[in-house]
Amino acid sequence: MPSRGRPRSAETDLRILTAVRALLRSGGPGAVTVEAVAEASGVAKTTIYRRYADRQEVLRAVLEAAIGDPGEPPDADPREKIRWALNQTWQQMTEVLGPGGLAAIIGDSDHRFTELFRSVLVPYADALVALIRADVAAGKLRPDLDADAAVSLIVGAYLGELIRRGTVDADFAERCIHLMWIAMTAGQD
Amino acid sequence: MPSRGRPRSAETDLRILTAVRALLRSGGPGAVTVEAVAEASGVAKTTIYRRYADRQEVLRAVLEAAIGDPGEPPDADPREKIRWALNQTWQQMTEVLGPGGLAAIIGDSDHRFTELFRSVLVPYADALVALIRADVAAGKLRPDLDADAAVSLIVGAYLGELIRRGTVDADFAERCIHLMWIAMTAGQD
Repeated sequence: MPSRGRPRSAETDLRILTAVRALLRSGGPGAVTVEAVAEASGVAKTTIYRRYADRQEVLRAVLEAAIGDPGEPPDADPREKIRWALNQTWQQMTEVLGPGGLAAIIGDSDHRFTELFRSVLVPYADALVALIRADVAAGKLRPDLDADAAVSLIVGAYLGELIRRGTVDADFAERCIHLMWIAMTAGQD
Repeated sequence: MPSRGRPRSAETDLRILTAVRALLRSGGPGAVTVEAVAEASGVAKTTIYRRYADRQEVLRAVLEAAIGDPGEPPDADPREKIRWALNQTWQQMTEVLGPGGLAAIIGDSDHRFTELFRSVLVPYADALVALIRADVAAGKLRPDLDADAAVSLIVGAYLGELIRRGTVDADFAERCIHLMWIAMTAGQD
């Protein structure tokens, strides 16, 4: 039986992982040191080391947990589906990777982790490509639409705004959807 | 008179600045240490310190030199002008900032330098906004075009592709221009 005041195991795990995610989002992989995790989580270093051999192992655990499954799009009109997929993709960028994780991929700052970082995002971008291709096949989007380039534009729009201004306003997603929608449907009925 | 074999001053300056730019592009500001610059340039640390007080000063010199003036667009049709402006902007991203510099802006990894990094790119993005707005005013692009969002899409496309794949193919710019051109002109004559 755990002693009074000692947090239960699941609670400790959660505190560690929450701290790692916050450090990663703001500072990238370089900010995830066992010292920083201990400080941010309030969990003792020895307790962290009982669970993870080193900083790489704790980082890997968090990244692997963040590789999600986009799931099925809502049964909605094409524009609404694109909005749904864009929101999912941007959420991975903002809430999981954050500026620190995005910078780590772009700068390839930690080779061992770059592909793992990328795999947090890529399933969502791929789901968006698949969704656009299906709607092209269904005649709902321009027949000659370059779905793959469209998705890089949609994924990148967030980064373009971030790099220009350091922040992305709440209405920016809608402005992107509006522009991309024109590019994807022009000439359609 | 300089002793035989001692490189002249301008040559030494150039070797230092070339090394700093290469370090910055690949590794971001964190990679620009006086040790690394000495190693990469073949210039002695003492010689570097005679010119720059510290790594911050050498980094600042290189960034300030990289803040360019986009100049006037060629007297060409609107699509050609947009191609010209996109190429200039992407060149600042690839040849001056590089993955290291881009990551430094996105991750805001060195607060003292983030705005200086950004100012290497922003004049080019602003020139692209101005150019699009002028062509909207001239009736050559859609009257309701959101020029500012279009530019974030164009700037970001490079980053979107880089983050998805780790590399940007030579034909990708043309695919982006094609898509954005449709978004910018749909419904026009």
